[in-house]
Amino acid sequence: MKALVLFSGGLDSTVCLAMAVKEYGASEVAALSIYYGQKHKKELEASEKIAKFYGVKRMSLDLGEIFKDSSCSLLESSKTQIPMGDYADQLKETDGKPVDTYVPFRNGLFISSAASVALSYGCEVIYYGIHADDAAGNAYPDTGVDFNEAISKAVYIGSGKALRVESPFVDTPKAEIVRRGIELGVPFEMTWSCYEGGVRPCGKCGTCIDRKKAFEANGIKDPAVADQV
Amino acid sequence: MKALVLFSGGLDSTVCLAMAVKEYGASEVAALSIYYGQKHKKELEASEKIAKFYGVKRMSLDLGEIFKDSSCSLLESSKTQIPMGDYADQLKETDGKPVDTYVPFRNGLFISSAASVALSYGCEVIYYGIHADDAAGNAYPDTGVDFNEAISKAVYIGSGKALRVESPFVDTPKAEIVRRGIELGVPFEMTWSCYEGGVRPCGKCGTCIDRKKAFEANGIKDPAVADQV
Repeated sequence: MKALVLFSGGLDSTVCLAMAVKEYGASEVAALSIYYGQKHKKELEASEKIAKFYGVKRMSLDLGEIFKDSSCSLLESSKTQIPMGDYADQLKETDGKPVDTYVPFRNGLFISSAASVALSYGCEVIYYGIHADDAAGNAYPDTGVDFNEAISKAVYIGSGKALRVESPFVDTPKAEIVRRGIELGVPFEMTWSCYEGGVRPCGKCGTCIDRKKAFEANGIKDPAVADQV
Repeated sequence: MKALVLFSGGLDSTVCLAMAVKEYGASEVAALSIYYGQKHKKELEASEKIAKFYGVKRMSLDLGEIFKDSSCSLLESSKTQIPMGDYADQLKETDGKPVDTYVPFRNGLFISSAASVALSYGCEVIYYGIHADDAAGNAYPDTGVDFNEAISKAVYIGSGKALRVESPFVDTPKAEIVRRGIELGVPFEMTWSCYEGGVRPCGKCGTCIDRKKAFEANGIKDPAVADQV
């Protein structure tokens, strides 16, 4: 196995998966999906279907225990509701802190877990879909360029230079990721982004809004909600 | 809670715990012990007793699933035996790679897990007992100064500057850690280091040898094996 893709079943990681498959071939790529107590665990069903679509090995981890005492509203264990509205509006309320759906050091934990798994399989690269929209205004501090540089260095050194992290979208807005996905023929209709994890995307949470704008910027309607008013 | 100590129940992390308790007081310190499939899970019993001794809250995680496909000889799932002899000798056989008991990116994963837990409890610092003897010759690449700098930066940035990593021994040999422990009155007889996890320390694995030398350098016999020939 050569590449391990951190794979939520969302839009960004699905484009990452398509890129890894194009680069290495499906037989050399594995997808790692993680349950961590998220309300929208529905994304994991999407990840199964998409992994099958691409013909890659799919692995999964349950890291829910680690976040059992977090009050983050993205988690099933939380008593608070996920905020509605885009991230720019949400950040006006946080007094310089991350948004309420920031899961404590989640991305650092995901990359570290992926590093341990990837090294067990002899992979040389981890793909991770962190992107510029999430980093904007420090909404999610574990998504930005500086964070990515530090954690990538930690993985490279800490693995004895056997493994590197590839974050192709760390400086890329979501609209550009959609454009890349269109080029690669990504089955966007199979992906799941909404934080609410309901029957259909809510259209009102931060990630739904961000996703909608990204498709609009490409002049198309999101195929996952094409039949929704 | 102010400080979370990554706490194996071994010598180095016990001195870290003593330092954290001295700095913040027992009521502001928690110890996090991790099962990851290690053969010497006996260390976890030691961690329980020592946490009780210091009167700190003890938390535990089971991350065994993450390493289930690793062939590392330190793990219960491995079919290979733990190498005997000191690390300098072991490194002669590895062709520039880590020693056979290197658990893939274990320390990066531990620090990341601790960061997620620490942030859930509002802690401002993680203590971690990585030390210079383990880093020497790149035996364990996830223990050195460069690794520590990178992962610490990742935690600080990725937490929105809410959390820092304190690795007081990253540049300190084990003999000096023992000296600090003696000053702090650490109950060394309660700690467990041996990788074999037998009834008594084997005295022959890399960590047993390293520990023995560290006590000898301080002119005393290791109290944990004081009655052994």
